[in-house]
Amino acid sequence: MTDLQTQQRDGRPSGRPHVVIIGAGFGGLSAAKALRHAPVDVTLVDRRNYHLFQPLLYQVATAGLSPAQIASPIRRIVSGQKNIAVLMEKVVGVDKERREVVTSGRRIPYDYLVIGTGARHAYFGNDQWEQFAPGLKKIDEATEIRRRILLAFEKAEASQDESERQRLLTFVVVGGGPTGVEMAGAIAELAHRTIIADFRHINPAETKIILVEAGSRILTSFPEHLSASAARQLAKLGVTLKMETAVTSCDVQGIALKDGSRIETATIIWAAGVMASPAGKWLDAPSDRAGRVMVDAMLHPPGADNIFVVGDTAAVTDANGIVVPGVAPAAKQMGHYAARSILALLKDEKPRPFSYRNYGNLATIGRKSAVADFGRFTLSGFLAWLTWGFAHIWFLIGFRNRLIVFLDWIMAYVTFERGARLITGGEN
Amino acid sequence: MTDLQTQQRDGRPSGRPHVVIIGAGFGGLSAAKALRHAPVDVTLVDRRNYHLFQPLLYQVATAGLSPAQIASPIRRIVSGQKNIAVLMEKVVGVDKERREVVTSGRRIPYDYLVIGTGARHAYFGNDQWEQFAPGLKKIDEATEIRRRILLAFEKAEASQDESERQRLLTFVVVGGGPTGVEMAGAIAELAHRTIIADFRHINPAETKIILVEAGSRILTSFPEHLSASAARQLAKLGVTLKMETAVTSCDVQGIALKDGSRIETATIIWAAGVMASPAGKWLDAPSDRAGRVMVDAMLHPPGADNIFVVGDTAAVTDANGIVVPGVAPAAKQMGHYAARSILALLKDEKPRPFSYRNYGNLATIGRKSAVADFGRFTLSGFLAWLTWGFAHIWFLIGFRNRLIVFLDWIMAYVTFERGARLITGGEN
Repeated sequence: MTDLQTQQRDGRPSGRPHVVIIGAGFGGLSAAKALRHAPVDVTLVDRRNYHLFQPLLYQVATAGLSPAQIASPIRRIVSGQKNIAVLMEKVVGVDKERREVVTSGRRIPYDYLVIGTGARHAYFGNDQWEQFAPGLKKIDEATEIRRRILLAFEKAEASQDESERQRLLTFVVVGGGPTGVEMAGAIAELAHRTIIADFRHINPAETKIILVEAGSRILTSFPEHLSASAARQLAKLGVTLKMETAVTSCDVQGIALKDGSRIETATIIWAAGVMASPAGKWLDAPSDRAGRVMVDAMLHPPGADNIFVVGDTAAVTDANGIVVPGVAPAAKQMGHYAARSILALLKDEKPRPFSYRNYGNLATIGRKSAVADFGRFTLSGFLAWLTWGFAHIWFLIGFRNRLIVFLDWIMAYVTFERGARLITGGEN
Repeated sequence: MTDLQTQQRDGRPSGRPHVVIIGAGFGGLSAAKALRHAPVDVTLVDRRNYHLFQPLLYQVATAGLSPAQIASPIRRIVSGQKNIAVLMEKVVGVDKERREVVTSGRRIPYDYLVIGTGARHAYFGNDQWEQFAPGLKKIDEATEIRRRILLAFEKAEASQDESERQRLLTFVVVGGGPTGVEMAGAIAELAHRTIIADFRHINPAETKIILVEAGSRILTSFPEHLSASAARQLAKLGVTLKMETAVTSCDVQGIALKDGSRIETATIIWAAGVMASPAGKWLDAPSDRAGRVMVDAMLHPPGADNIFVVGDTAAVTDANGIVVPGVAPAAKQMGHYAARSILALLKDEKPRPFSYRNYGNLATIGRKSAVADFGRFTLSGFLAWLTWGFAHIWFLIGFRNRLIVFLDWIMAYVTFERGARLITGGEN
């Protein structure tokens, strides 16, 4: 165990304050970038070597984009920033007393700590469902879901058993939040438009995409009329909505619902809930039901003024009493706020509390289908979809392939093609 | 078990001869395409859902390209061809007596059979080496090798043990054929140019890339002066050549050589030999030392005039006495020949024996480095490399992303970047 800080400059101690950032998601990266010219040394720790543009992960799961198009090496993103060291290691705890981050291999002392470790999907105490109903947070999960969806079509094409074929052509998405809606819409397009011309025995009319939601409407973070619009747009794409229907179990043959019914299916996608990373446990701090660390409006957990929790890992009500949502722009703002607060603290100034700026809320449904809520006005359909498309390509910042993703999308739009229809992994 | 042929046209038997093609590599696809307007029904069986442009697989292994850029769904490639059905299933045998292909799930009757199932890398009886020294034939192998290479750099950056860091920064490629040369060159560029600016503790001078070859020269399928040129070009890229050095064992810590020396390394890539798929066993036909089915100049195994073996699966001396090499253009020509022969046989004509046309032999080494042998003249260096680049992009036929790969390469050329530096799989 050595002091990483003293290694910062080729082994020479810099003597400058050491900021450790755990997690290179939107929050952590935003904090790192905002410290670019600060008189501090920064260590950015992540268990993966890439930053993932998670809002487009569903495109990987539905064969529209390749992993490398939405993931970029962390080292490259911060390559030009001289005061930063990147460490690919798994954090296992935080020693608040000694002010050290504990990884699988070492202890890293910190003066300031920013935690943005994100969230995982949650099965509400039924973790055994995960093998039958994978969630969508990581690249490997996205390629596994892609594998399952494409393999279901292949097996259906080859199957000579009518009921088995129907089961294979039934896709169930659990959860009517943005991810569930995106997934259901994208699978519907894949089934009804993209793939079908390539098969000889599959009848598009046989394919069923069912979106199961426990609540009374989808996209609850949007105004009600947009939820209704999204439901109509999904129906138009051929998605069946099952509202106010909770899941009681998942197995290898299908899914059982609270109304006593059962759907035979080979492909279930879980988009029903999130659970924050174990940062709350590391910090021994109170967390909410979703495991998010309860922080004050300065993003501090109780009694730790040198620690900031950002993004999906934090449960925070901002200076204006707004409950900050778990979306990428909020994570970015929090990361930036944490960096500015550290700069203020270094000058013995008192940071002002965090206030969230809502620039709008977007959810895409499919080709030419989306909803957008800008507070003063809302959009749905084609215009919302265009807005969504430009916003997402624009925010692929730091990705040299922004242009290539853009070209890919234009081609996909014109041809209905999806460029990444590969069944990889497994035994093949 | 049902008769697949009778399913060809929505359950109605077509009565037309049934051609079964096993394997959608260069040979199989070429045969399928050449039967486009033939009065036959074609079933194309492959255990994977994509055709792989194998000559560029080393680019996936070294983070230059994404899998989806060099792999295309078989169904899409033949989508417009009405007389073809694609089946994603694993073939386990051939019943020559009953003229049926046996898969894991069914028996498929054939009138004509084309086998182009390719080759795997061979460990010459030391299969236990594979876990330490993976080969490069499949996408999943390429992403695993990419994972190992990138992870070695990450671990070296974090390591505080001098000898362990040296071990992590040593990369060994076994085998001086085209794949071994490409891999060694690409790793050298990755280490010395692309990656190094992003790390703080790795010294480029510490990185060692060692190419181990049992014979007395690399690229033995080329004239001697091109082998020598390739060796010089590799040395210029920083690759150390160890000639006339056989491997005696591979383990998790490194590799032992016949001269009694040992190289401590965390990354070994196996490019030393190939072994044909088990088609010889299926057919109960004689095969050569590399497992390739010994076929006559009509591509038939002994006593089976309705069976054609093509590509890397076949050992063949053509009509002009030329031993056909195991390269993509040869596989394409054989597939095309098999299709034309079937058409001739259908007309009760006698097919002429296969004659191989050598359009040139290309091997790339790195940026601006390659060798090319066109018989009458040879090229090396920049011109050979340009030829190689245009030829490979040109032959990405059927890939809608040919343009995108081209743009990617231009960008990579200008920026030294590699767009797919993702460590996926494993526990992360």
